[in-house]
Amino acid sequence: MTTALELVAANKSFGGWHKRYRHRSQVLGCDMVFAIYLPPQADQGGPLPVLYWLSGLTCTDENFMQKAGAQRLAAELGLVIVAPDTSPRGDGVPDDPEGAYDFGLGAGFYVNATEQPWARHYRMYDYVVSELPALIEANFPVSDRRAISGHSMGGHGALICALKNPGRYLSVSAFAPISNPSNCPWGHKALGNYLGADREAWKAWDACELIATAEQQLPLLIDQGEDDSFLLEQLKPEALVQAASKAGHPLTLRRQPGYDHSYYFIASFIDDHLRHHARALTDA
Amino acid sequence: MTTALELVAANKSFGGWHKRYRHRSQVLGCDMVFAIYLPPQADQGGPLPVLYWLSGLTCTDENFMQKAGAQRLAAELGLVIVAPDTSPRGDGVPDDPEGAYDFGLGAGFYVNATEQPWARHYRMYDYVVSELPALIEANFPVSDRRAISGHSMGGHGALICALKNPGRYLSVSAFAPISNPSNCPWGHKALGNYLGADREAWKAWDACELIATAEQQLPLLIDQGEDDSFLLEQLKPEALVQAASKAGHPLTLRRQPGYDHSYYFIASFIDDHLRHHARALTDA
Repeated sequence: MTTALELVAANKSFGGWHKRYRHRSQVLGCDMVFAIYLPPQADQGGPLPVLYWLSGLTCTDENFMQKAGAQRLAAELGLVIVAPDTSPRGDGVPDDPEGAYDFGLGAGFYVNATEQPWARHYRMYDYVVSELPALIEANFPVSDRRAISGHSMGGHGALICALKNPGRYLSVSAFAPISNPSNCPWGHKALGNYLGADREAWKAWDACELIATAEQQLPLLIDQGEDDSFLLEQLKPEALVQAASKAGHPLTLRRQPGYDHSYYFIASFIDDHLRHHARALTDA
Repeated sequence: MTTALELVAANKSFGGWHKRYRHRSQVLGCDMVFAIYLPPQADQGGPLPVLYWLSGLTCTDENFMQKAGAQRLAAELGLVIVAPDTSPRGDGVPDDPEGAYDFGLGAGFYVNATEQPWARHYRMYDYVVSELPALIEANFPVSDRRAISGHSMGGHGALICALKNPGRYLSVSAFAPISNPSNCPWGHKALGNYLGADREAWKAWDACELIATAEQQLPLLIDQGEDDSFLLEQLKPEALVQAASKAGHPLTLRRQPGYDHSYYFIASFIDDHLRHHARALTDA
């Protein structure tokens, strides 16, 4: 058993470093690659707070780092950003039998699968919440002050990771999250396959259910493009607004006119999210 | 003959719009796609100044728009950015017989080819300097105040377009340009094939030659990563420094320690270039 990190790539970026590492994941039973942005302050030894970014369907660790334009402000704020892959990968890892984009490889949905043949490898929740942070905190000049955010499937992931783990994250936000996966086609397919047909089991992985009983009420910041083509069928932020309202959970949903589901949307508002997280992470 | 623009994609970005258009190029004899960033000020009718961005080998109109993070400051400065493709494309357009990345499709080198079979389509210089700006100025709320910049092969393109056309651009800059194409492997291959074996013909397309007789001495701003793996064999900024010094041409070459040839490098310094261009473009 080893947690050796193999450096895959390194690019200097805004005075800091974008790096990609491969490592053996015990939780997922395969090799995984993650990306980390180390701001210039990391050279002084830290410890620095960490924002975990969870990407959406079809993405890898690379999309956010290449397209979100987050490094400029992260360098200014002294924020480390970690972007994991979106599913287990490799020869032994089963995929959607038809190679669909919305299930299997690139679509781990940040849950722990219980059904075969998925249960052995598809445990992205444990990977993101436990194994990866332990690895990051053992190998980089970071503190245990963590924030979490993500996009679409990764927005869902960020919400459930925060809601299920009081005290583990100091802040949470999301871009166009799949807000109510029990109640949309992407979620039906993923939860039905990973967790089985019993919808009771889905509730533990649905932000709209979790928010009702969350022990900690971290304020949720959500941006949603009004021209997002997935808005009505898949994302359903209104369901989360309703559930949050019922639970008295603080939620700021910003509806952004004209914006779509792309990284052009994310880049336009990432600075607001970084500042949201930095405020929580750097408070004493 | 038509200059109709077909909208291929539109994404709201920092209050403005990233759009991609397809059009028939008479100069290149094929359909071409370009990208344009229209800042929010374009909604007020302009006219706004335009920065033309020329990308490097293997790129299309998309790389810069997705990865450079330029829209944030362009929106603030009221700057339109136009990113053309890097070569003619399409069924009738000949490619490198071995499909190499450094010649043919994706590698137009911003020259007008004189040799067969390239001369019919490979006229990226005329496209970038004349046909595309005419199209932009006829269809968007822009002025004739133009700047030009680019990366690698596109840095070479920006330099020669500015040096060969006094008065046409108000400012010029480059990231890691191929500074002396007559004297490096990429340039040998491209100029030798597009222009023929006679090296005399290459001089009209080499910044180190053109700078000696440039009628207008626009200050050149160049950023170069010191850990760029192409620095010594292909880019050779020292040759341009020497030629500029001999000609008394103002040149600022910033050597950036640790930076490589990637868009992480470009993103780190794009704001400085945008401000350099905005100063020249918005002076009365």
